[in-house]
Amino acid sequence: MRNILIIGAGRSSSSLIKYLIDKSEEESLHITIGDVSVENALSKIEGQQNASAIKLDVFDKTDREEAIKNADIVVSMLPARFHIEVAKDCVRFGKSMVTASYISKEMKALNDEVVAKGLVFMNEIGLDPGIDHMSAMQVIDRIKEEEGKMLLFESFCGGLVAPESDTNLWNYKFTWNPRNVVLAGQGGASMFIQEGTYKYIPYHKLFRRTEFLTINGSGRFEAYANRDSLKYRSIYGLEDIQTMYRGTIRRVGFSRAWNVFVQLGMTDDSYTIEDSENMSYRDFTNLFLAYSPSDSVELKFRSYLKIDQDDLMWDKFSELDLFNAKKKVGLKNATPAQILQKILMDSWMLKSEDKDMIVMHHIFGYLQKGEKKQIESSMVIKGDDQVYTAMAKTVGLPVAMATLKILNGDITTPGVQLPIKKEVYEPILKELEEYGITFVEKEVPYLGYNPDSVKG
Amino acid sequence: MRNILIIGAGRSSSSLIKYLIDKSEEESLHITIGDVSVENALSKIEGQQNASAIKLDVFDKTDREEAIKNADIVVSMLPARFHIEVAKDCVRFGKSMVTASYISKEMKALNDEVVAKGLVFMNEIGLDPGIDHMSAMQVIDRIKEEEGKMLLFESFCGGLVAPESDTNLWNYKFTWNPRNVVLAGQGGASMFIQEGTYKYIPYHKLFRRTEFLTINGSGRFEAYANRDSLKYRSIYGLEDIQTMYRGTIRRVGFSRAWNVFVQLGMTDDSYTIEDSENMSYRDFTNLFLAYSPSDSVELKFRSYLKIDQDDLMWDKFSELDLFNAKKKVGLKNATPAQILQKILMDSWMLKSEDKDMIVMHHIFGYLQKGEKKQIESSMVIKGDDQVYTAMAKTVGLPVAMATLKILNGDITTPGVQLPIKKEVYEPILKELEEYGITFVEKEVPYLGYNPDSVKG
Repeated sequence: MRNILIIGAGRSSSSLIKYLIDKSEEESLHITIGDVSVENALSKIEGQQNASAIKLDVFDKTDREEAIKNADIVVSMLPARFHIEVAKDCVRFGKSMVTASYISKEMKALNDEVVAKGLVFMNEIGLDPGIDHMSAMQVIDRIKEEEGKMLLFESFCGGLVAPESDTNLWNYKFTWNPRNVVLAGQGGASMFIQEGTYKYIPYHKLFRRTEFLTINGSGRFEAYANRDSLKYRSIYGLEDIQTMYRGTIRRVGFSRAWNVFVQLGMTDDSYTIEDSENMSYRDFTNLFLAYSPSDSVELKFRSYLKIDQDDLMWDKFSELDLFNAKKKVGLKNATPAQILQKILMDSWMLKSEDKDMIVMHHIFGYLQKGEKKQIESSMVIKGDDQVYTAMAKTVGLPVAMATLKILNGDITTPGVQLPIKKEVYEPILKELEEYGITFVEKEVPYLGYNPDSVKG
Repeated sequence: MRNILIIGAGRSSSSLIKYLIDKSEEESLHITIGDVSVENALSKIEGQQNASAIKLDVFDKTDREEAIKNADIVVSMLPARFHIEVAKDCVRFGKSMVTASYISKEMKALNDEVVAKGLVFMNEIGLDPGIDHMSAMQVIDRIKEEEGKMLLFESFCGGLVAPESDTNLWNYKFTWNPRNVVLAGQGGASMFIQEGTYKYIPYHKLFRRTEFLTINGSGRFEAYANRDSLKYRSIYGLEDIQTMYRGTIRRVGFSRAWNVFVQLGMTDDSYTIEDSENMSYRDFTNLFLAYSPSDSVELKFRSYLKIDQDDLMWDKFSELDLFNAKKKVGLKNATPAQILQKILMDSWMLKSEDKDMIVMHHIFGYLQKGEKKQIESSMVIKGDDQVYTAMAKTVGLPVAMATLKILNGDITTPGVQLPIKKEVYEPILKELEEYGITFVEKEVPYLGYNPDSVKG
């Protein structure tokens, strides 16, 4: 039996664990789930053979070392900032490692040691980052092999609610960490390049600079720019590309309404509010509006944000109970972002019968034999239920597949890496198809922004 | 002879040095000016008796210790972050110290040692902070002595250009560190309280939430809220006050136009722009506008920022050459804020004949014997020339006076402090009057926001 240690038994681990347990007989695997909560770990393996649960606090050096020593390969599904101690032990004890997180500076710094020991530290192999890298590189490499020169790459991804569970005016529910949704886009300007022209969008304009996209069979969406698209030029080997843009997908109309929270300052996580606990939702809203002894919060809100009387966007805010004077915030010394998150969680949590949906969409523009061409490639995945969500499947399955392929010696290039090599993306994308995770690709006329010349 | 060491011979030191040299005979003073540039230090004392210049790098321990040991009192006019090493040596060698900067945590932490040694570390005794504290506390203490209960305190200050030198459409020139003007308001939400209701304004709305004020003889101004007004409740002993607001004064119309830079993202200092050196001013402006292969930068600017064809604000941007395709940025790897500063410095630097002007305005609302009353107190000071500017006088003179009064034993309360005690503000405000730095006070009808009841 080969022992796979999975650290962290959160929501995103369900498909990962199921895949490995399903393969455990034919592949002679034993799966050990380590979590700070042993109950949590146990719940993931109920009644399963070839699996065991252990209590594992990654900050407990002895327990952590013991667990890693006993493993043949280690998967860390912890939040990204907790990987590094696990990674250092993996180097020490000569174990390969897999994560779905962005490569941190500290992780990257281990590369030489990892290479020296012939280990594979595969990161960014979930959904986004993960499937986005693999599906993009597969097409980019093919275009290059066919003597195409890449002109444009745009990539979009979003975790949404499936149409049959789409029951609120925002066409959105939390299918992932709500806090990350509230803080999305913060921490610096978004930057990208379009036809050779750099573009920078500050956070407070991000949600008014959306682009629309239509995906056959799934309708129309909008996208706002991700933080730093520029760095993907070097990661994807597209240093000279004229257009590089990555964005986050939402249903049309979401961003314009979300912008209201940004404008008010409700997404700010940098300070706490005095006496937040006893405030009503209405009091909270009023914190961000000019003082007036007589005017209503509603009218001040409309006037400040220029929301006309007949603007349907208004109903989105009413739906959230933003003007309710009876509902209490009930959080002590909370930041605006924490309070907003609470208000949104009242309305946007998935119900037990709700299904989530992942949408990914790439646009590749290129020049081939003097002709400009364009390929669009889309993936739309729905969750099965509340355990095997689209998010859990798309994050967990590639992690699981990579783990087994490293263990079996099918992926061998040593070092701290992400899945941009054919050795990795080809077999994994192929196997993902068996699980219904497929891309629909079509050739379309080259659009770009400006087929003739590049201006500003 | 008593030796006064002044560290830092910048623009704000001229009035400070002149005051002390003028008093040097009658008070038996020797003034030593220490600066990293000995030429700079020398230029401040040309042909003066009782003064000498030394080269002093505060990071050179030996030189610093030597200079402080030889002094009877030390004035640090360095940027605030450089005070602490000087302060520690002052504690060690038992010297009192004066600065015009906000008390840092590190400075505050020295309090017990400073008290134990019987030293006076007087901080925040320039203009703002400084004259604002003193002039406010004088009225507040008087109101309290006369059995008034403070209801409202609003305080405004701004460094502007004098009307006779006001020659651009912004009614503004740089009379102080341009970088601080470009970054003003960043680093967190502004917070204050109005009639018992907390209010928070995010940076990107700050310059659209201005309030107007009229000062007799000087006309109409506007003000945007300073970062944290709430903390002044405890500093001024006004814990239960219903309204506490501090703001920065500009001429009417400045903030609405400045907001355009904020909205675009031009004031962002958190990232650098690729190839900024070779960009034109027009290219720079275009970085923040949506890509279009055909539309003009001008029209994109107007459309994005909703500037109508007949809006006079437009001329403010034309005046700054923001659409000039020939003027080059010429700064390598610059942040947007650095580039904006350069563009503004082309237009907003004081000319040799220009004079600056400081405006300060306080509003005190209080309840006395069942009656609501209001006092307004204003100070308007113009510079004499480019050396003895209003800024240099209002910053330097209170520093100089405090230094001499500590040296003479007129100010004795030991510890790390700011000028909110009568012992300090009374003699200094009185002496400032001799130098034309006076407040005009008048009683006006109580306005508040809402004389009847407190709503939201």
